[in-house]
Formats: sequence, C-alpha cells, structure tokens
Amino acid sequence: MTENDIFCFSPGSSESRDFEPLVFGVTGLAHSHIYGMCDGLIKAGAVLKCVYDKDEAAVISFKNKYHYVGICSSEDELLEDTEIKLVACAGIPSERAGTGVRAMTAGKDFFTDKAPVVSLSQLEEIKKTVCRTGARYFVYYGESIDNESAVMARRIIKNGVIGKVFHIDSLAPHRLNPENRPEWFFKKEFTGGILTDLGSHQTQQFLSYTGNSDAVIDFARVHNYNFRKYPEFEDYGDFALTGENGVTGYFRIDWNSPDGLGTWGDARMIIEGSEGYIELRKNCDIGADMSPNRVIVVNSSGIFAENVTGKVGITYFNDLIYDCNMRTETAMAQSEAFKAIELAITAQNFADKRLRSCRL
Amino acid sequence: MTENDIFCFSPGSSESRDFEPLVFGVTGLAHSHIYGMCDGLIKAGAVLKCVYDKDEAAVISFKNKYHYVGICSSEDELLEDTEIKLVACAGIPSERAGTGVRAMTAGKDFFTDKAPVVSLSQLEEIKKTVCRTGARYFVYYGESIDNESAVMARRIIKNGVIGKVFHIDSLAPHRLNPENRPEWFFKKEFTGGILTDLGSHQTQQFLSYTGNSDAVIDFARVHNYNFRKYPEFEDYGDFALTGENGVTGYFRIDWNSPDGLGTWGDARMIIEGSEGYIELRKNCDIGADMSPNRVIVVNSSGIFAENVTGKVGITYFNDLIYDCNMRTETAMAQSEAFKAIELAITAQNFADKRLRSCRL
Repeated sequence: MTENDIFCFSPGSSESRDFEPLVFGVTGLAHSHIYGMCDGLIKAGAVLKCVYDKDEAAVISFKNKYHYVGICSSEDELLEDTEIKLVACAGIPSERAGTGVRAMTAGKDFFTDKAPVVSLSQLEEIKKTVCRTGARYFVYYGESIDNESAVMARRIIKNGVIGKVFHIDSLAPHRLNPENRPEWFFKKEFTGGILTDLGSHQTQQFLSYTGNSDAVIDFARVHNYNFRKYPEFEDYGDFALTGENGVTGYFRIDWNSPDGLGTWGDARMIIEGSEGYIELRKNCDIGADMSPNRVIVVNSSGIFAENVTGKVGITYFNDLIYDCNMRTETAMAQSEAFKAIELAITAQNFADKRLRSCRL
Repeated sequence: MTENDIFCFSPGSSESRDFEPLVFGVTGLAHSHIYGMCDGLIKAGAVLKCVYDKDEAAVISFKNKYHYVGICSSEDELLEDTEIKLVACAGIPSERAGTGVRAMTAGKDFFTDKAPVVSLSQLEEIKKTVCRTGARYFVYYGESIDNESAVMARRIIKNGVIGKVFHIDSLAPHRLNPENRPEWFFKKEFTGGILTDLGSHQTQQFLSYTGNSDAVIDFARVHNYNFRKYPEFEDYGDFALTGENGVTGYFRIDWNSPDGLGTWGDARMIIEGSEGYIELRKNCDIGADMSPNRVIVVNSSGIFAENVTGKVGITYFNDLIYDCNMRTETAMAQSEAFKAIELAITAQNFADKRLRSCRL
C-alpha cells in the first residue's frame, strides 16, 4: 500500500453540469460565515444578485466585497424577486428558521449557516415547511463540507483503508476574540448554546463518517470556565453518543484557544477503524509547520502522512447547485442535515438539564 | 517567554539520599511490567535479592535477565526473609491484593503493577491492611511516573505556563498482539475489565494534573468491537469525570492499535488551561519522526515544541526508596494511588451496569 493508494488524489466528479446559472440572494449578515458561503457558491458558478439586511453597516461591508450586488430595501423585495432561486443566510441563529420558512414559502431553496435552527420546535417547523413547499434547507456545516482534510477522510473510509469505523474522537477548540463578537453571540436565546452551535458540526461529521442515520446521546456537559463576565455564555461543552450501528463518538468543543496559536483553533479528529485509524489535523499542525489539512493514516501497512490542501477540492457547492436544479440530494441528504442539528440540540438539552440539577 | 522558560530543564532534586541500600524481593511475574519496575528500582540503588513465582518458566526468564537473583521455593520463604524490606509484584491483577496483604502483614512495603486491585472490596481490604501494618502499597502507574513527557507536564502546569487547568482529554490506544497474551488476560475476573486496568493510569494522571483528591464519574462505556473470539474481553472503553474543583476529564482507551504503528500505542494527552494548552505525544509522533516524549505547549506567547527524552529524568523510584526509608510520601501520596483505582473501578462498574441494561 502506498501514499497514492491511501490518499487517492483523484479529482471529484467532472460530470458536465450545464444549467442556467443559479441566481441567489442573501439575507442575514450577522455572522461572517456568509462570506465563505457566498464565495463557495460563486466559485461553483452561482450568481449573486442582491442582498438585504436591516444592519446597514453590514450591507455596506458586504457590498465592499461584492461591488456588483444589488441592495434590496426589505426582505420582501428580495423574496419577491422571481429570478432568485436560492436564499443564503447567516443571520442570528435563532432567526434563521423564521427566515427560512419565509424564503421556502416564497418558493426559494434556502442555504443557512449552522446552527440551522436553535430548538427542536424550530426544527419541526422547518421540516413541515420543507414537506409543504418541496424546497430544500441546505446547511453550511463548514468543518465537514468546506475542509479538504474532512473530505479526504470520507474517501479514505469509503475505500476501506481503515476497515470498519467503530469510534470517533473530535476535539474542536476555537479562539473567542470576545471584543470582535456581537452582543447576541453571548446570549443563549440567540445561539442555542455551544453544543447547538459548534456541536452540530460534530454530529454531522459523525453521521457522515459512520453511516448512521440516527444516534443516542449518552452524555453531555457544558460549562463557562474562563469568561464569567458573560454569564449566559458557554466556553466549553462535550458530549458522547452512540450510533444505531453501535459506533461511538466523543466530541469536545470550546472557546479557549490561546492567542499564541495564531489561527482560529487546533481542530483534531481521530477516526478509529477495525484495521487502522485516521488523524485529521484540520486547521493547523502545532507539531509541524502549522499548515492546515494534514491527514495521517495508520494501518497494517504503516504510517502515511499527507498535507491535502489543494489536492482534494470542495465539491459541496457544485453539488448544491446541481441539487437546486435537479431536485436531487447529492450535496448532503436533507435527513442528515436535520438529524445532525437534532442530535446537537438533544445534547444541549441533556447538558442544560444536568447543569440545572447540579445547581440544585 | 522562551523554550527554556517553558520546559525548565532543571534536573530533579539532587538532595543527598544515603541510606542502607533497600533490599527487595519479587513475587508475581505474570506481566512483563515487572521488568520495568525492577529496572527502575535497581537503577535508583535498590538491591534485588530473590524471586518467587509458581510459574517456573517465568522464573527462569527472570533469572536470565538478573543472573544474581536468588530463587525462593515458596512465597513464605520470600516473605520470611527479614533482609527484604519491599516486595515487588506484577502478578495476575486479581491476585495482587492478596499478595499485598500477605507481604504487608509480614512487615514489608509492597510495590504492585497497576491495576493494584480489581474490586472495591479488595481496595477496602488493602486500605485496612495499610492502616493496621503501617506498610506502604506503592503502585506502578507507569504512564505517569515512568514517562518523561508526563513528568514534564506536571512541571509545566506547576509553573503556571498554561494558567489554571480546566479540562483534560487523554486518548490511550494500545496494540493487543493477542497471540502473546496469556489466557488470564482475556478473562474479566482476573483483570477487572479495561477501565480498571488501563483506566487507572488515566484517573491517576487526572488527579495529579488537576490537584483533585476526588472526582465523580459522569459516564462510562465499554465494548468489544474487534475481538469477539474472546467473549469477556473489552477492547474499548471510555469515561468522563468531574473533579471536586470542577475540572473535567475524558479518557478513551482501547486495544485496537494497528500493527503498522510499530510501537505499543499512540498515547496522547491534551491538558487545557485558562492560558493555554499542552499536548503530550507520549509514545510516538505519527506526524514527525516517531520519537516518544514530544511535548507541545501553546499559550499567549506562541507555540513551543520539544522532545524531552533524556532531558527530564524519572525520580519516582528514588522517591519510592526514600519513602521506604523515611516513611514519607514523596513518590506519590498513598491516598492518590488508592483514589485513582477507586475511580477507575467506579467507571468500570458504571460501564458494566450500562452494558447490562443495554442488553435487556
């Protein structure tokens, strides 16, 4: 077995996908993830037509980057534009579901930053709206779909290089930079808490890597260790779950990365299989040159390490555009996007209940 | 802040410790850890006098390494030797407590491989015997006391380099090599299960790094994923706990390291503090040259990586000899050695109960 067998650097499908360009609008600029979402769509061929946000400063910043974008004076104006087929949104998390319902009801597909909803009741409303309208509710689970090491891991697992996956550990610390965060960021009613927010990245990856369509939350904790000046804020959370097929997972997320790291976080994932394991040093390698996308595979043939930046490609956005046009589910199954956030919120509820009982 | 400030390569205490050499005997050769235990003691100045084991082949192997060792014809002969002050033992785990009670009752200190006992009732008996006899029941928690990166981590924490510790993750996979393991290794009545065995390394490190004298087990799981031919065997376990001071921990241990790794396991520990974190790549670095004892510190000053092999030294055995002579507790507090195994067994019991309820 050689590096080439392990990392199989074939490009994604080059299937011809000639359609009328997908035209999209943007509403919800509260989180800067909107730029990653728009860049991904535009690079894949979609056309950004117009933007609306009640925050005028945010709209000005947005137009500074995308000079050609039209500015709508209301959400209604944007949603009434029949040329727009998709609405992209990185609004305040608690408002995403409402925007999504209005967009889908107006006949658009919807592409939201994670967390896509902040409560199980919002999730139910979204599911009903998807059924009623036939629209799609895409979610930007960036740590999985917009990270080349994560995409590479899916290929390696699929090719049987580590046998049958039986456990996943994921450690995803983040740097807070509190002075650059808006007020809503520290209020739980707006974010849903750390497990709802950052945890949904993790549950989605668990489902994707283990082939599960459901799981049980075994345990979850949240804390505020180091930012007591924000009483509702959670700077730490972890949880354990077991998939329907018996595969187990543990996930720790926090906002305590030190400034000296020089990047947003040192996210790691270790995927254990019956024949070997994969470590993803997703965003940097503190023991090497700090490059992102380091993938290390250990199996019976030996140890294989590779930096996969630029060698894998991100197909999610092309697939999303294809799905909008063809009504397929190639980018991510709708059920997976929903189950991921359902599990994350269930973990959050578990931790919240535990915290309340600890305080009694 | 520089590498030298972080890693503070000062040698351990050079305090003069001139005593009559400590004479020790060995009984219990079931696990090869006995060689690490003896080598450590001998290097620190103790004198190996004699050995007893009912397994004659094991005694011959032992004498092949230590040519000068005397062979006793019974445990009684060894325990009646008044020159012997300490008995070292790596017997079958379930038999260590019994041997320890007999040794302490005969007026010896006792030095056992982990797990030092396999049940809470054995632990109670040991505690009573320690109280009754005034003897010491030392435990060879090798991953902590006989690993230079682990020793370095204690220094770094003590020097405040990462602020106040709030969470520890430890991932300690092991390679099984089933064909080289004795029958008892796969029977739970002899080992106490994976959390009792390998887990006690982890709980001891948690107590040591976080300054806790007690903790609560929040959650635990055990499984047999890949070795179903040994029905009682557990190849996987994990658990979460919370210390009295609120510090949290998660630990995953397993027997699934692939042969291609080339060493017994890729043990990692990440210690998170309010001002930074430490990663220990304890036994190898799969992303570098596979050297053990790689210590990486990230804090507000930057990223500092160092291979500490040969730069820290192991003082545990010198301290143990000092404690035998002076009746002090410099090597490890007796209460810490006991609490570590109590927590590990409590985690095992949690997981066993969970497994039974899952099977209903």
